[in-house]
Amino acid sequence: MPTAVAGPEIERLIQLLARLPGLGPRSARRAALHLIKKRELLMAPLASALQTAMEKIEICKTCGNIDTQNPCTVCTDARRDQSIIVVVADVADLWALERAHAVNARYHVLGGTLSPLDGVGPQDLAIDALISRAHEPQVKELILALNATVDGQTTAHYITELLHEANVKVTRLAHGVPVGGELDYLDEGTLSAAIKQRTLF
Amino acid sequence: MPTAVAGPEIERLIQLLARLPGLGPRSARRAALHLIKKRELLMAPLASALQTAMEKIEICKTCGNIDTQNPCTVCTDARRDQSIIVVVADVADLWALERAHAVNARYHVLGGTLSPLDGVGPQDLAIDALISRAHEPQVKELILALNATVDGQTTAHYITELLHEANVKVTRLAHGVPVGGELDYLDEGTLSAAIKQRTLF
Repeated sequence: MPTAVAGPEIERLIQLLARLPGLGPRSARRAALHLIKKRELLMAPLASALQTAMEKIEICKTCGNIDTQNPCTVCTDARRDQSIIVVVADVADLWALERAHAVNARYHVLGGTLSPLDGVGPQDLAIDALISRAHEPQVKELILALNATVDGQTTAHYITELLHEANVKVTRLAHGVPVGGELDYLDEGTLSAAIKQRTLF
Repeated sequence: MPTAVAGPEIERLIQLLARLPGLGPRSARRAALHLIKKRELLMAPLASALQTAMEKIEICKTCGNIDTQNPCTVCTDARRDQSIIVVVADVADLWALERAHAVNARYHVLGGTLSPLDGVGPQDLAIDALISRAHEPQVKELILALNATVDGQTTAHYITELLHEANVKVTRLAHGVPVGGELDYLDEGTLSAAIKQRTLF
């Protein structure tokens, strides 16, 4: 009895969809069927959107953001504070900060964090480019918006060391209770940090 | 402050991905970033797989299955039992039965189930085609593999009525305890059916 009911083209589509984060083999099949049923309304637009993205998407040569223009929309936005650079590990973090309207500044995407165990060293990240941007005269502050993990904090320390003699303030994100979070569910480290860094009501 | 960080092409890709079942807005963004990062390994193949599927996929004119050939692979497979037609509501159900190697027969996809509340009547489903297939001389049995829901069972009854005078056996799936299922979590209807339809050990 054959294992592949549908043709090889459909199997291939399912296999590729299953490689997207968040889609397993079962949901990839559902997605493929959905696409096939909405051929004109969804499948055709998605095929052409992917093609357009393939042709147009570039990595910003200044900050490492992903955009269809180079330098990217963020880097060329004159209304942004030119004195602050927000350092993030990944484009997803940049997008998250922008969605939150957290800061109106420019960014620098490292492309990961230092991780000796995984063999990720300084030469694998955009650290040299960051150091040279940090020495630009208009730059006054670097906000290290890195994950509060061992690798993230190692990277933050490494960058801080390198900028020891540069005339730039290096800051990092506050630790504390997430907005809407319940104390009962928080770990001891976060609770201690939230107490230490308490602010006036 | 702009809400769209990336270009309109990327936003469009994210919006389309978010319309796939199983992907919300957040996971669609992750999927888009993943695609962009794996431009050659994943994005290009997916774009071309979608294009190929667009061009090649057809609905089988015999059974309603989705395939790249018409009549489909299942209908043209001479090793299948030609005397049995398995009636399913949706192509997804056909695929599920094939994955389970549940039966080596041909299928008939209704394209849904009767649902007076949603305005789905017999004319909206491939019921006429089924009735004429059921009258083909080699067909001896129709297995109604429809959901054990009100709509599924209404559809099963409706089809059984129509085939009242045809020389064909109409059967339906057994009710009972799912393999690996725990009695404690089953509803009363399933438990009663499992007792009623008990088999010799």
